[in-house]
Order: sequence, then C-alpha cells, then structure tokens
Amino acid sequence: MKFDPQLKSGERVDELYANNIKIIQSADVFSFSLDAVLLADFAQPILKQKAKIIDLCSGNGAVGLFLTKKTKAHITQVEVQTRLVDMARRSIELNDLNEQVSVLNMDLKDILQEIKKDSVDTITCNPPYFADQPSSKKNPNPYLALARHESTASLANIIVIISALLKMGGKMYMVHRPDRLQEIFSLLEKNRLVPKRIRLVYPKKGREANMVLIEAIKDGRPGGLRFVSPVVVYDEQDQYLPEVRRILYGEE
Amino acid sequence: MKFDPQLKSGERVDELYANNIKIIQSADVFSFSLDAVLLADFAQPILKQKAKIIDLCSGNGAVGLFLTKKTKAHITQVEVQTRLVDMARRSIELNDLNEQVSVLNMDLKDILQEIKKDSVDTITCNPPYFADQPSSKKNPNPYLALARHESTASLANIIVIISALLKMGGKMYMVHRPDRLQEIFSLLEKNRLVPKRIRLVYPKKGREANMVLIEAIKDGRPGGLRFVSPVVVYDEQDQYLPEVRRILYGEE
Repeated sequence: MKFDPQLKSGERVDELYANNIKIIQSADVFSFSLDAVLLADFAQPILKQKAKIIDLCSGNGAVGLFLTKKTKAHITQVEVQTRLVDMARRSIELNDLNEQVSVLNMDLKDILQEIKKDSVDTITCNPPYFADQPSSKKNPNPYLALARHESTASLANIIVIISALLKMGGKMYMVHRPDRLQEIFSLLEKNRLVPKRIRLVYPKKGREANMVLIEAIKDGRPGGLRFVSPVVVYDEQDQYLPEVRRILYGEE
Repeated sequence: MKFDPQLKSGERVDELYANNIKIIQSADVFSFSLDAVLLADFAQPILKQKAKIIDLCSGNGAVGLFLTKKTKAHITQVEVQTRLVDMARRSIELNDLNEQVSVLNMDLKDILQEIKKDSVDTITCNPPYFADQPSSKKNPNPYLALARHESTASLANIIVIISALLKMGGKMYMVHRPDRLQEIFSLLEKNRLVPKRIRLVYPKKGREANMVLIEAIKDGRPGGLRFVSPVVVYDEQDQYLPEVRRILYGEE
C-alpha cells in the first residue's frame, strides 16, 4: 500500500472492486451503501476536464470517488459534518485523487458563497431520506441522525440550491425514496428542473421499489420523461443479480 | 351461443379467456388492448353491491366488463362516441350483464348532470394518451383520433371530474403513459387526489416503461406512495411472461 490511510478507531477500508476505489468507512459514523454505488452508476457526468461537478451531501465521499472513473472534470464534494469530511479527505488521499477531487466542509445553505451561481455542469446528491418531523424517531447516534434526517437541509432547500448552482442545461442526479417522488417532481417543477430519466430500484422480484434514481435538466424542454429499465438487486436466494454484480464487482 | 351479438361490418368477438368475458371489437373503430386488461387487473374496486363504480372514457366497455369478475357493485360506463357505446351495449348483452353494467353515452363535461357529486366509490379510467396539440398528427380515422387524442377531454378536465365524482376515501385507477407522470401527480395534487400505488409496465427486460398504472384516493392521507413490483410483458422471444399469461388466459 503506497499510502497509509491512518485509520482512526472503528474505521476500515472498503473497496468497490468494479472500479478499484478504496473508501474509508466507519459503521459508527457512516458507511456508503448500494445507494451511492447505484447513483454513481446512473449518473452521466459531464466528461470534459474544464467542467465543474459537485456532489452534495457527500458523506464519506463515495459518490464523488466513484465518478472519477467516468469523467476527467473536477469534483467538489460538499458535506457539513466535519468527521465525515475528515474521512473523505483521507479517502481522496488513499486513492491518489487530490488533483481531481476536493471537499468543502460547509452547510449547504452557505454554498453560494463558495461556488458561483449558474456555474455547475453536473450535480449528484444522495440526501437524507427522512423528512425531519418532531415526532419521528431519530437515530441516537448524532452522526447517523444527521445523515438520515433532514435536520440541516430539507429536500426543498436542497433542490433550490441545486437549481441555483446548475448552469442552464446542467444535469442533476439524485437518489431518494420512491414514496417522496410526487414531492420531488413538484419541487423540481418549482425550480426550473425538468425530470428526464427515472430508474426504480426493487430489492427483489415481486417486492416494492425502495429507491429511485432521478435525472433532471435545468431549463430542459418539458416532457419526454423516461422510466428506464429497473434495477432488481437480489434473486430469490438473496444473491446479487448479474447487473448489480457488474456494478459492484465489475463482473460481466 | 345463447345470444347472437348481431355483429356489424368489420366487427368481431374477442374473448378474455382469464375471465370468459366476450367483447365486440372492431379494428376500424376501437379494440381493447393490454392497457384495459392491466387496468382491470390493477384496480381494487369496491366490493359491496350497493356501491357505485364508474368507468370513464370506457370505449367499447372492456374495463367495466372485466371488473364484473371482481365486484358485485353496479358499473356505469361513460363514453362520448355513439359508435363505441353501441358496441359496448351489445357486449353487455352478449355477456348477460345488463343487471350489473350500463352505459351513458355522453360527454364527460356533462357527467355531473347524471351522476351526483361526491357519490362514487371507485372510478377507473383509460383516457386518451396524447395531448391534443394543433401540430400533432392525428389519426385520419375520426373514431381512433378521438380515442387516442384529448380532443374532447383534456387530462386536466378528466382529473377534475374524477375528483368531483368520488366520495371522500373513494379510489381512482388510471392507466397512462409514464412520460405524463409528473403532470398527472401535479393534477392529482390540485384535485384532492393522493396517489398511493403505482405499477409500471415494461414491454421487455432492459426496455423503458410504456405504461403506468396509478391508484389514488380522494382526500387520502398524504405520503406513503408505493411503487409495487412492475409488470414485464414479453420475454426475449416475444412470448408473454407468466404473470401476463395469467392475467390474459388465467394460466397459473
């Protein structure tokens, strides 16, 4: 190993074998999961080197690292939790990607102080999934609570910010829960974002979808929304189906 | 055959083997298709005899006839085209369903003159799919043009009427094209209809969805939208997959 990742207590290094990206994880704090892998697979980031890509709510940085296998453009990760930013920075180091990937440790609501309005080509976002309601049971672990609940940034605020950052014609890729899709469509419509491609993720044949991948274009021509072929994750024996094996392990 | 369907020129009798319903069809005018079969399969109509079910945009009456296998409630079909109403009435006769099914030959916009507001338990609707735009190429056959284009009733008007007819807690089942789903969600939201269950229909593995089935509840509690397991119609050899064979032919 050419670089010692200097793991802290409770941390481990996981590898996404399909693209040889190594990621510092911690079950205590945050681990990337299939959501991040499928979001990076679904995204079609701008390719050219001089373009700008932002990964919002970047957590330990998995999505941004995976995207480096698809584009030469610079990728800025934005994450509010310092502990996760620390992990993300060491993972960038570990993969020798300092040239292409950087991290901003800041609250989304301040992002326009750092990144110019209407300047971004591609945004990816794996936001907290659960609406922050006073009655909802939060994870007693404050790191996980922040990552899973909309404590610092509501979905509405996130979509306002995505729209502000994107250029006309810029693209957004988001992963979320299917039960929020009506709300997401409504928020996109209010923010000049036109959904163009949706991919549903079903855990298993015969089961309900538990994730949805969304592509939207800022100021895109309305209409023409496509629901592309879904992902089904597991077979009847709880083994990954071939497409997911390909995405995770690079197997054909 | 206990009843002579008195077929007119160009007509034939098709049978849905899964439920032994016979339907008078005409390629020149209108034929029911998989859309109607899947809509009737997806719908969960109210069961009790004294309840009220309406099938809007009922065409030659396929959906309403199929529903008789699922419920004892009375079903009123509503269709503006007299030629189709004539076929639908003879099909009801042919299946000996005069007691349970009737047809109103009228324009949707006049429906509240015949059916009381807030009185209907279940509505099914297989509306025209294509927005009526001056530039769009219409079918030169006026019967097919009316059935496929929103010449007489826009999707917005249809959803306003569905909401007006339904009781609180009444359910709507609609089949439409997935590329209209954002618009449909938005129209439902404006009309007190809360989408609860979505089923996408993909023609084949690896292809884009070409139909969407939607269940919505009038004044339902917001949230909890489920994307249930999709239908995939054909296998790689263009043969119906087992679930579709079951729906069409009753095969297990």
